[in-house]
Amino acid sequence: MFAHRSAIAFAPASVGNVGIGFDILGHALSGAGDRVHVRLIDAPEVRISAIHGADRELPLDAASNTAGAALIALRDSLGCAEGFEIEIHKGIPFGSGMGGSAASAVAALVAANGLLRQPLPLAELYPMALSGEAVASGSRHGDNVAPMLLGGLVLAVGERAPIKLPVQAELYCAHAHPHCVVETRAARAALKGAYELGEFVQQSGHLALFLTGVARGERELIAAGLNDVLVEPRRAPLIPGFAGVKQAALEAGALGASISGAGPSVFAWCWGKASAERVGRAMVEAFAVADLKADLLVGPVETPGAKLLSVAH
Amino acid sequence: MFAHRSAIAFAPASVGNVGIGFDILGHALSGAGDRVHVRLIDAPEVRISAIHGADRELPLDAASNTAGAALIALRDSLGCAEGFEIEIHKGIPFGSGMGGSAASAVAALVAANGLLRQPLPLAELYPMALSGEAVASGSRHGDNVAPMLLGGLVLAVGERAPIKLPVQAELYCAHAHPHCVVETRAARAALKGAYELGEFVQQSGHLALFLTGVARGERELIAAGLNDVLVEPRRAPLIPGFAGVKQAALEAGALGASISGAGPSVFAWCWGKASAERVGRAMVEAFAVADLKADLLVGPVETPGAKLLSVAH
Repeated sequence: MFAHRSAIAFAPASVGNVGIGFDILGHALSGAGDRVHVRLIDAPEVRISAIHGADRELPLDAASNTAGAALIALRDSLGCAEGFEIEIHKGIPFGSGMGGSAASAVAALVAANGLLRQPLPLAELYPMALSGEAVASGSRHGDNVAPMLLGGLVLAVGERAPIKLPVQAELYCAHAHPHCVVETRAARAALKGAYELGEFVQQSGHLALFLTGVARGERELIAAGLNDVLVEPRRAPLIPGFAGVKQAALEAGALGASISGAGPSVFAWCWGKASAERVGRAMVEAFAVADLKADLLVGPVETPGAKLLSVAH
Repeated sequence: MFAHRSAIAFAPASVGNVGIGFDILGHALSGAGDRVHVRLIDAPEVRISAIHGADRELPLDAASNTAGAALIALRDSLGCAEGFEIEIHKGIPFGSGMGGSAASAVAALVAANGLLRQPLPLAELYPMALSGEAVASGSRHGDNVAPMLLGGLVLAVGERAPIKLPVQAELYCAHAHPHCVVETRAARAALKGAYELGEFVQQSGHLALFLTGVARGERELIAAGLNDVLVEPRRAPLIPGFAGVKQAALEAGALGASISGAGPSVFAWCWGKASAERVGRAMVEAFAVADLKADLLVGPVETPGAKLLSVAH
């Protein structure tokens, strides 16, 4: 079953939700990601030997760790006698809204898959990646793991095979990560409570415009649709300076801007790299007004997904 | 400004909402519609001379009638000295969920537009059609008037220019109108109350699959998406026999089925005419089990919109 004993894989960060696609849309984000080293072991178990570069303590118990849980799911699926030992190099800050927990799961899966004599197409790792992600988020949603597996913008609805939505090469993302933390659970708690049908109608109209704009490559429709009226207003209070950062992005020419994943990072979609760099600087400056340092990433929305970096005997 | 003194136009029925696109999606429905005769008058007003074929009393006061209100909006927009006299021939039953109030407004606008020396493109009549529709429904939503103006399947978000979404010629609609009435206001009342975020996530996932399926011409995605989990469960109790009718449609091979507009009509999307006819018969038989006679319409989703039938001096 296995051709190699050791493999290293990388999974990029991601922008979950993309504002108007709560729990169903996400895109890969270049410039950051997790790297995971997986070794075949003769014991029938999954264990985590080390986590490097984490900015806070992450669970070493495999079943409680997203990478560990993903490989437990993979072992169950393969029905193999061997086990895996995992070494994680975190490149995505905790609680940043960049899909850090998902990236460890996806990188671990892609590395373990690389050990196989006949590796699976990466899309087939999706159910196991959902199992990994669920350990951190409490639910099976694929808006982070799906774009990490497929690259670019991806529609991930429930357990269905995720669908890649190709976008124009000119679409860039400017992504500002402020040095503060919003815990996923707190961000979810902000969404508790009742919603009105009118909010849904407005948001679904925006989602429909966005998807139609993406499908047709019409940036005016994308801009009209990239306007989250449902989740953003409830989560924005958790992010210091959010209103100013969003306004700065729009004034600098962004097509739209909203919260990346559960926040506190803010993303903006832009037309062209130069525009995205200008927008990104404006966002970082606006975070500075709120006394927050922020790290900037700028890259095309059509960013490659996870990849196997090396295999060894 | 005017080249003719009299014109007759037809507007087809429509399937509002299309299940998963509440207030934002609709498509034209062939085989039924309203016909409106508009005459130029020298008085600066809009009046309704007669309404034929109505199965209940409709307002003859122009401002309270959807056709009248639409032409009042058109007069305001044109700034013309002349007025219009309207004669309406209803071909769409009241409270059927087939867009009857919208069709009168659209047919009146298309007829009045035909009187102009330089008629507007039909899409430019959209804001006036919204004003007409609002008289009956209490809000400006274009899921009926937009497909009546443009034909086929249309995305209508707020006041934005509606967007035609071309669909494959093989997509047919089977539409069963049972002989009972659901008043639009009662149907709206069923939607009052609180919604949960989880309902929204599921419905927006379905909407995204549906739109992606339509854009790509992938019927499996359309079928996966055409599943209203938000509005249908709340309105279904207003429609005798609904569950059985929907089940009959799906068992007969429909891609999906739901409530047409505010009901009580039920529509099903099918692949090919023969399938739609089979599905339609199954729906009519299922309504019969609930002691309801039902009228069946079968036609392509890509059905032409309103048209000018004749003009005269």
